[in-house]
Amino acid sequence: MSLTKTLRPGLIQMRVLDLEESVRFYTNIVGLNEVGRTEDGRAMLKGYDEFDHHSVVLREADEPGFDYVAIKVESPEVLEELAKATEEFGYAVDEVPANTDQPGFGKRYGFTLCTGHRIELYAEVEQASQIPMLVNPDPWGDEMPHGMQAQRFDHLLLYGPGAAEAERYFIEVLGMYAPEICNTEEGTRFATWLTGGMKAHDIAFVEYATPGRIHHFAFFLQDWNNLGLAADLIGKNRVKRDVGPTRHAITRGQTIYFFDPSGNRIETYAGGYAAYPDHPQRFWDLSEVGRGLFYYEGELIPSFLQVVT
Amino acid sequence: MSLTKTLRPGLIQMRVLDLEESVRFYTNIVGLNEVGRTEDGRAMLKGYDEFDHHSVVLREADEPGFDYVAIKVESPEVLEELAKATEEFGYAVDEVPANTDQPGFGKRYGFTLCTGHRIELYAEVEQASQIPMLVNPDPWGDEMPHGMQAQRFDHLLLYGPGAAEAERYFIEVLGMYAPEICNTEEGTRFATWLTGGMKAHDIAFVEYATPGRIHHFAFFLQDWNNLGLAADLIGKNRVKRDVGPTRHAITRGQTIYFFDPSGNRIETYAGGYAAYPDHPQRFWDLSEVGRGLFYYEGELIPSFLQVVT
Amino acid sequence: MSLTKTLRPGLIQMRVLDLEESVRFYTNIVGLNEVGRTEDGRAMLKGYDEFDHHSVVLREADEPGFDYVAIKVESPEVLEELAKATEEFGYAVDEVPANTDQPGFGKRYGFTLCTGHRIELYAEVEQASQIPMLVNPDPWGDEMPHGMQAQRFDHLLLYGPGAAEAERYFIEVLGMYAPEICNTEEGTRFATWLTGGMKAHDIAFVEYATPGRIHHFAFFLQDWNNLGLAADLIGKNRVKRDVGPTRHAITRGQTIYFFDPSGNRIETYAGGYAAYPDHPQRFWDLSEVGRGLFYYEGELIPSFLQVVT
Amino acid sequence: MSLTKTLRPGLIQMRVLDLEESVRFYTNIVGLNEVGRTEDGRAMLKGYDEFDHHSVVLREADEPGFDYVAIKVESPEVLEELAKATEEFGYAVDEVPANTDQPGFGKRYGFTLCTGHRIELYAEVEQASQIPMLVNPDPWGDEMPHGMQAQRFDHLLLYGPGAAEAERYFIEVLGMYAPEICNTEEGTRFATWLTGGMKAHDIAFVEYATPGRIHHFAFFLQDWNNLGLAADLIGKNRVKRDVGPTRHAITRGQTIYFFDPSGNRIETYAGGYAAYPDHPQRFWDLSEVGRGLFYYEGELIPSFLQVVT
Repeated sequence: MSLTKTLRPGLIQMRVLDLEESVRFYTNIVGLNEVGRTEDGRAMLKGYDEFDHHSVVLREADEPGFDYVAIKVESPEVLEELAKATEEFGYAVDEVPANTDQPGFGKRYGFTLCTGHRIELYAEVEQASQIPMLVNPDPWGDEMPHGMQAQRFDHLLLYGPGAAEAERYFIEVLGMYAPEICNTEEGTRFATWLTGGMKAHDIAFVEYATPGRIHHFAFFLQDWNNLGLAADLIGKNRVKRDVGPTRHAITRGQTIYFFDPSGNRIETYAGGYAAYPDHPQRFWDLSEVGRGLFYYEGELIPSFLQVVT
Repeated sequence: MSLTKTLRPGLIQMRVLDLEESVRFYTNIVGLNEVGRTEDGRAMLKGYDEFDHHSVVLREADEPGFDYVAIKVESPEVLEELAKATEEFGYAVDEVPANTDQPGFGKRYGFTLCTGHRIELYAEVEQASQIPMLVNPDPWGDEMPHGMQAQRFDHLLLYGPGAAEAERYFIEVLGMYAPEICNTEEGTRFATWLTGGMKAHDIAFVEYATPGRIHHFAFFLQDWNNLGLAADLIGKNRVKRDVGPTRHAITRGQTIYFFDPSGNRIETYAGGYAAYPDHPQRFWDLSEVGRGLFYYEGELIPSFLQVVT
Repeated sequence: MSLTKTLRPGLIQMRVLDLEESVRFYTNIVGLNEVGRTEDGRAMLKGYDEFDHHSVVLREADEPGFDYVAIKVESPEVLEELAKATEEFGYAVDEVPANTDQPGFGKRYGFTLCTGHRIELYAEVEQASQIPMLVNPDPWGDEMPHGMQAQRFDHLLLYGPGAAEAERYFIEVLGMYAPEICNTEEGTRFATWLTGGMKAHDIAFVEYATPGRIHHFAFFLQDWNNLGLAADLIGKNRVKRDVGPTRHAITRGQTIYFFDPSGNRIETYAGGYAAYPDHPQRFWDLSEVGRGLFYYEGELIPSFLQVVT
Repeated sequence: MSLTKTLRPGLIQMRVLDLEESVRFYTNIVGLNEVGRTEDGRAMLKGYDEFDHHSVVLREADEPGFDYVAIKVESPEVLEELAKATEEFGYAVDEVPANTDQPGFGKRYGFTLCTGHRIELYAEVEQASQIPMLVNPDPWGDEMPHGMQAQRFDHLLLYGPGAAEAERYFIEVLGMYAPEICNTEEGTRFATWLTGGMKAHDIAFVEYATPGRIHHFAFFLQDWNNLGLAADLIGKNRVKRDVGPTRHAITRGQTIYFFDPSGNRIETYAGGYAAYPDHPQRFWDLSEVGRGLFYYEGELIPSFLQVVT
């Protein structure tokens, strides 16, 4: 197989303040489909273009934020190797048996990254009951994509201490590579964008004193025009927008940031270059990273660094 | 590295009837940049978003058509492994020393596939002098993309006998996978789409009695709107169009087929789903493949099967 | 008022073979809304962005085709003037009293143009119950545009004898102007595109031996991307497509032609230049009009001249 | 003629601080063409899709801002009528002879509106040497549109005292209509959008204590995607952006505001509904006008009211 070890971030669990309001937001506006509820009442969702059982879980809690992200890997054998390599890297790994708190998912291994985030790895997951067509397929099946037409959970950006170590873990252990990095003037890592495939990023980290914070998680849209539709829905539904429609110079993606009803920041993302591990790495000076993030604005939007959950 | 073994089809050499006219066509209209000429007068070109020395070579000849495609692999070590595995698969492999007929390219191994096409493998190539920006990069550098704004050589479709064997070679030896296949009513392979990364296809084969034919090679454009620009340039420059703008249901890409001045078919291609090796394979009945290729037309365009070079 | 005399073609009545099937097609796929049924069972429809009571009427009949088009004029006073001027031009005018066969419509005057088509004029019509928002309006109201998101009935192209006389009538009597015309090699009028406002055309005529035929009537879409959505729906619903997505050089509009279930040709149209009466007229040679109609194809599509209803 | 009295704002003269820098900005980035210089050194420019001699004049001065806008009217007869009616409305009218300070322009009548702005009227102007093709025309001629691909000078927004009177003048004398208006809580006019054709606005006024100020003047782009290109050029050239890409709920247009090197605000504008004088007027509460102006942001951008030149 040419695409090996890690495939993609395949599951994210987020905390929300009001579950029903949140489910309505993610289904009616973002355009996800609700797959069902877990026994303990969490909501499972997925994009119309995803095959696995679910990719987003919402858990009602007293404050918003990030529970964990789980990365799908190539095979059960690779899963065992990566769990062992994670231990060797220095993180204590725990095991979550199959089909416990995440219906349809096989065994997961989890650990706490230096940045304070729980990261999980898994190799097996049941197929969802509603997936893209497989025989003489149309671009979409019985149900036309709705809302913002989010195709899939795409990537996430985490804030916490130790971005350099996190990068090293994802490269050395998980076999990802970093198409772009940003250093401080002192030459320490301020931010890193990492991918295991051809997306410009699967996961990114920004150096931040407080551990365990999430800046945003992102859904993939088809193109710039689909972002226009997403923005129309933001206007129509009076969704709290953060930035955009705009372009990142970093990853070259086109983007809108906005907030779910609990204050979690979401991105709808399109475009972005095709990354390859043999391409040279792009480098950002911290003084230019604002323009790198917001190419049309030409400077850092203050809320970008200040508002995390 | 998560993306291993083969990276992508990185080089194609095509025959054209009139070199200067062809270079003007590929640079002014398609929007490639000319890198230079080889000692024996072939023209080397590349897209504005490619890093390697060149990706398209035009050779003046008495008739148009396909000379060979070369696939970039992960490393020199993998190159040796793949050459050996190719021999073991049953194809006689020859070696083209570095920097001979393809300036900037390292050692290549070549062989003739059952379909009658020469396939080459290589691991090393010099970087082009004009590449995307690397330090605080803008989406494009000094020169704005021009013409159809072709970003890169993307994929190709070859016609010849033995599509099933070709598929088996690309999967078993090169480690690719086939996101979509099409069978005849008898259950034999009519067509196969293969990829080594996350593009829905890097290379495809259609079963065809005459060996060594090419249906088209394709350049990637950013999106549906960029296809509109390409179509405007086809109209403006009275380029001979074949089909499109339309959509493929196969790969879900948006597309225009047209001909270069020598009659070689080119595709400008955008969109397409993100492929993953763990996604289930899509299957096409031969009776539906016309609609799969031309989703808006709803049926096979006769020229699609009849005109190859 | 700066925009005077005629405002636009505001109502078209078409014959269809199966009314229910047709209503489903125009509402579910084209995206019109059904306003209601007339006492004699005809279906009244309108686009989501239209204010008047209805703009399209479907009448079940044994063969498809055109019943009439009605043009909205500035005021009841102008209506009387234009009726009188039409008589003076040489056409016998009849009167259709208000609120008879077209619910909500005021008095209409009708006549048969030299081309064999019934043309009507009216000044007053009730507002529809569902119209675009008027107070602090969003781009759309309670219901998001659906299907192809047709905004409005936009224009039509009629085939019949006497295109030159028809043009003269629309200019001299109705005060329209012809942004583009096409002549035969002998210098007689082959086609004319006429407008009373800033749309590149409200109505067009092609010289044709058989009277009373319609080539197509058109719905306005927002842009090229919206045409992509329309084309996706054509593919998804296996609608019989004629040509496109493509561009007209004539009017510069972007377009798809396809057929309703009865074989009436419909156009979805976007773009087009802003016409002004002081702009010089564009002229087409008959030998170039194929390219003018189908700029990407570069030549006349045979069905364009042969299939009319 | 159906489109009568006023045709459009056809000429605007603006003050800039550095003429050569400004000409480079408007030609290289906005994409206008320089027509030439006047005897006293002002620069004349036009969009690629305009027919008249020029539409934008830049005059070097110590501070930026608005000199005047000139509105093209239907005919010399109408020009005389409108000049007389303007006097009768209460404004002193002066005459600028043909071909004096605006090469190619016929006689103009000018006056100072209550808002402190000089408004001119004219009926005749020579055609530019470079105009859209007229015989078997392509969508563009020898030169492909460049930069932001501004098609034409489209509209302007003026700030000054007496918006209600200005509105009354444009409706009663010039025959325009106001598709949208905004009132204060006290019911006085805060803003008015006026048009003489089918564009949602040709000119707009906001009530403002200081006379003679301009908020922005606008260039028309083809669609949302063309706005993406404009935004890319803003990023690439580090142009000072104000707001957007975003959408107006008012006029429904898609938009970017940014500043020329002198600090004059420019808009690139696309979309917008087709206005008709028989459509009901849209009404905005002052409390909602922020959202009306910036539909994606959902609130007034502070710079919008504060920065005028």
